[in-house]
Amino acid sequence: MSCFSTSKKGETIVFDLSISEDATPKVLQRFLDTKENNPISEIKFEKGTYHFYPDKGYEKFVYISNHCDLMVSTPFPIKNFKNLTIDGQGSTFIFHGVMIPFLVEESENISIKNLTIDWAEPFHSEGLIVANDDKNKTFDMEISDEYPYEIRNGQIYFIKPYYEHSLGQSILYDPNRSAIAFNTETYTGITVKKRTTTYNGIENIKYKYINDERAPEYKDIGLEARIHVEQLKPGLVRIHNHKKKLPPVGMILTMKGEQGFNRVSPAFRVTHTNGFNGTNINIHHAGGMGIIAENSADLILDSFNITPSNGRMVSTTADATHFVGCRGKVVLKNCTFNNQLDDATNVHGTYQKIVDVLGDNKIGVRMMHHQQKGFVIAQPNDTIGFVRLDNSFFPYEKNTVKKIEYLNSRYQIVTFNKALPKEIKSGDLIENLSGYPDLLVKNCNISKNRARGLLISNPVNTVIEDNFFNTEMEAILIPVESSYWFESGNAANVTIRNNVFQDSQHSGFNRGVIRFVTDDDNQNIAFRNIEIDNNTFNHFDNLILEIANAEGLKFTNNTITNSGTFPQLFPENSAVKVKSSKNIIFENNTYSGKATNILETDAAANSIAFK
Amino acid sequence: MSCFSTSKKGETIVFDLSISEDATPKVLQRFLDTKENNPISEIKFEKGTYHFYPDKGYEKFVYISNHCDLMVSTPFPIKNFKNLTIDGQGSTFIFHGVMIPFLVEESENISIKNLTIDWAEPFHSEGLIVANDDKNKTFDMEISDEYPYEIRNGQIYFIKPYYEHSLGQSILYDPNRSAIAFNTETYTGITVKKRTTTYNGIENIKYKYINDERAPEYKDIGLEARIHVEQLKPGLVRIHNHKKKLPPVGMILTMKGEQGFNRVSPAFRVTHTNGFNGTNINIHHAGGMGIIAENSADLILDSFNITPSNGRMVSTTADATHFVGCRGKVVLKNCTFNNQLDDATNVHGTYQKIVDVLGDNKIGVRMMHHQQKGFVIAQPNDTIGFVRLDNSFFPYEKNTVKKIEYLNSRYQIVTFNKALPKEIKSGDLIENLSGYPDLLVKNCNISKNRARGLLISNPVNTVIEDNFFNTEMEAILIPVESSYWFESGNAANVTIRNNVFQDSQHSGFNRGVIRFVTDDDNQNIAFRNIEIDNNTFNHFDNLILEIANAEGLKFTNNTITNSGTFPQLFPENSAVKVKSSKNIIFENNTYSGKATNILETDAAANSIAFK
Repeated sequence: MSCFSTSKKGETIVFDLSISEDATPKVLQRFLDTKENNPISEIKFEKGTYHFYPDKGYEKFVYISNHCDLMVSTPFPIKNFKNLTIDGQGSTFIFHGVMIPFLVEESENISIKNLTIDWAEPFHSEGLIVANDDKNKTFDMEISDEYPYEIRNGQIYFIKPYYEHSLGQSILYDPNRSAIAFNTETYTGITVKKRTTTYNGIENIKYKYINDERAPEYKDIGLEARIHVEQLKPGLVRIHNHKKKLPPVGMILTMKGEQGFNRVSPAFRVTHTNGFNGTNINIHHAGGMGIIAENSADLILDSFNITPSNGRMVSTTADATHFVGCRGKVVLKNCTFNNQLDDATNVHGTYQKIVDVLGDNKIGVRMMHHQQKGFVIAQPNDTIGFVRLDNSFFPYEKNTVKKIEYLNSRYQIVTFNKALPKEIKSGDLIENLSGYPDLLVKNCNISKNRARGLLISNPVNTVIEDNFFNTEMEAILIPVESSYWFESGNAANVTIRNNVFQDSQHSGFNRGVIRFVTDDDNQNIAFRNIEIDNNTFNHFDNLILEIANAEGLKFTNNTITNSGTFPQLFPENSAVKVKSSKNIIFENNTYSGKATNILETDAAANSIAFK
Repeated sequence: MSCFSTSKKGETIVFDLSISEDATPKVLQRFLDTKENNPISEIKFEKGTYHFYPDKGYEKFVYISNHCDLMVSTPFPIKNFKNLTIDGQGSTFIFHGVMIPFLVEESENISIKNLTIDWAEPFHSEGLIVANDDKNKTFDMEISDEYPYEIRNGQIYFIKPYYEHSLGQSILYDPNRSAIAFNTETYTGITVKKRTTTYNGIENIKYKYINDERAPEYKDIGLEARIHVEQLKPGLVRIHNHKKKLPPVGMILTMKGEQGFNRVSPAFRVTHTNGFNGTNINIHHAGGMGIIAENSADLILDSFNITPSNGRMVSTTADATHFVGCRGKVVLKNCTFNNQLDDATNVHGTYQKIVDVLGDNKIGVRMMHHQQKGFVIAQPNDTIGFVRLDNSFFPYEKNTVKKIEYLNSRYQIVTFNKALPKEIKSGDLIENLSGYPDLLVKNCNISKNRARGLLISNPVNTVIEDNFFNTEMEAILIPVESSYWFESGNAANVTIRNNVFQDSQHSGFNRGVIRFVTDDDNQNIAFRNIEIDNNTFNHFDNLILEIANAEGLKFTNNTITNSGTFPQLFPENSAVKVKSSKNIIFENNTYSGKATNILETDAAANSIAFK
């Protein structure tokens, strides 16, 4: 499609409700008509409700980080645009089926504001637990007509227009709190699969190169259904053979289908774009994330809210926001991130594995995780770090990129401006040191969602202030993630101040509310210059802070109390755990929690200061 | 990727066996390096065996007519090339996994010769029937280690490197004849699916626009597994619940997985290319067709042979050759088309449905069959026919194309040079009258395959001469296919001469060896100017010719005998059936078959002449 980049001031388009039954064709036609001599500067919608169907939308195959890779349909193919504003003026956009509402690529200064995004039918399904039977290991679930289903050979499939999903990934919601159920890990995820026992010759299948057995195309191998589903009457099903504890009556089981197949429609997808503003946006649902931004710069989300609609427990079926390889400023402010089925935000780069050294300045790299397929690690002149995590979490050498040849979604050839380091070898990783942002998360409400609040691997600058957290896993997780997701980034210059941490980590994991952790079990430093100041931890359990592989961390002026909201899950825990770290300072904190032991540490006494 | 079109004489590249372990990276690198100042004219391979893996291949999403639509890998991305020859010099190319060996797009005068294509592991699987049990409705199948499998919840999955398939579509081969088993329709396909009986709310799912329930994404709805598979010992499985007659002991069941998912790797894919020569090519296998050509012109296949290797029953898992919307000359000569799991050739266009009249000269059209998704019906200035099949098999008006806007794989907007016909309405079809060829099929051996020999809808010119046919369905099928596949084209100017038809239609269908048929049950003429002259029909059964909706057909100088090869399946049949036709002439034929009634017709006596 021909899009445009122009300095000429474009037209202001106003769409009215005459297009509301399916706004896709008219909106798309205007995009298709955009040429150098017919640019758009602003698109406004008369306030009202507009439906968007995929049937006549603009179609494109997209590799989306941390989503499925697939052909999607969009009414807003914003590619090669500059200085474009889309103003919903308070309108609601209802999407139908597998679509990406806003597909923003290779653009500059794009603003989208004042609109609400929802889907007519959600990409997940919900069922109310109405009975359970410990003797027969069954539980019964009531499924409303909002979630049509059929049972095929004892497996349940939820059928939507344009989409279907199996039970798959699931978690319990407590409808009284409209939040993840306390201690849900005891009950969920429903154990849908088990190992197969009958096969022949599979063990002889060999691959010449690395094969990712976790990729969707291989993940069925060796597995079959463990549970089976019986319909007691239409709308009431019995689940047999669940291996964990049976879900309690009154809870709501939210189900989104199998991992690797269930993230098909994020609300915003932004790539290779400099300047993106999302303001006064309400996203009630998406079959994936609220926004996934990759290789972009200066992204400001202000009052960019994720909340469920129509009495549903779930808003988006994956993270509220997610930033991969983004630079410049990334700002989340005044946002509500509620009830999404994954983190409020992730910020990281990618580690890519060197599989071929092809010359003095040329390597072949492989994308290791299938959800990073198609990700281009760098732009020309970006600084790449060469990393060998066994030795250090920091690069052993740096170089700048001359050229990247994209051969396929798993394999790219990177040519550098200078010669490669002498010690380079296959198996080393690369990361893009230019691809991390100045991150600010301010005045956000992060609660009622599955998983973490903030998951951040960012060695540049991170400020987290004035937020409220009530998450079922860590409120803030700061990892070096090298072994599964290959999401790059250590962390430095992190300020966490003036936040309220209310009863996070309540789903059953024995982990801290704030947690610094590396996959690689060694003594090397991964995290530097961390300040945790003036926060309130109102926590039902003991463990509020876990620190590993950190150097230079100050925990000051914080207030820690016990909320009494839930029974303690791990009363034996200390309030703080520290390992493989140095120069850790605790100063002027107020503790009125229940831990008998405040600090558990492997460190020499002189590397941790209490004042 | 940057490819090139140049008049400059390019380099001759010779690859030697040093690259044979995985020839993909070096071959591809040379394609990537091709620029205006570095063109290639010829690529030669030192004679030997070369392996090609997908891991470092060039990747592209392709919509392929009559195949799956998917991301594929190729070592030969021949796009925007002119005057390129690839000479295998007798080499064998072994492919691994989901690849398209030769992806030829938007090129001119491409010649590929003197090579053999095979796959390390086939995309289908074979099992020997070793027992059956009528009482318990089971049969037992021995599966060699060549076909690794696992059983998941009673269903068998064949696992290959990079691919897996279920039992799915299946047919019996007779290993004594290395051909489709006599009367296989009594036994196969194995009835793998049945209707589901347990569901809730499915009936309330509504679509705003036409929905293709046959498309892969919807085809599981309402179905579940009927059969179940039990392993008796590794390599020996028992199939329960097959509904048809149980396959006889000693036959080989060939299985290729579910329709809509099992055509992923044709050997050659040619689109928008003028001039393609395939000479001295042996294709032993492909996960799809030997060659699928679309929107191309002047395609000459000479000694382009499809035969199985390694003792397998099956060569390619779909048609040997297939031409959609091709023009100029299409020639198949001196070819062997053996053991493929679909027709030797198909030649047709597409019918696309008018769903929106968007202005004086603009329509929105929908691709009706999912295997036509992404097909662009015409080039600018092509002549389009407007068709209403209820009224006529021929267009009610013509117009030429100004522009096609491709919005998505199902929906395109066609703008014409002149105003639309006044009587146009949604639901009418369009076909491209410029997109049919002069077709010659000469001196080919077409046998041992599933389905037809030639399936041709071509209103231009067709000559079929000096061929040998021994196919399980029609040797030659000439249809107007409007209701399921939406493959366009009536037929005119068809000459069928000097061929031998040996025992076709032996799999159990009550149909003729040569058959003219329309989906639409009316009296209108679809086929004109047909000559069937000097052929030999050596047939085990009676019915050699079915004619419907034809005007002007001469059947002359043919010799019809009974072969005695198989028992007759339909001894009550006449030798010839004619309906809704006129000016049909039978002259100077010799009949020594077994039919007591030579001709069955609904026609007035004076429209059929016997001389």
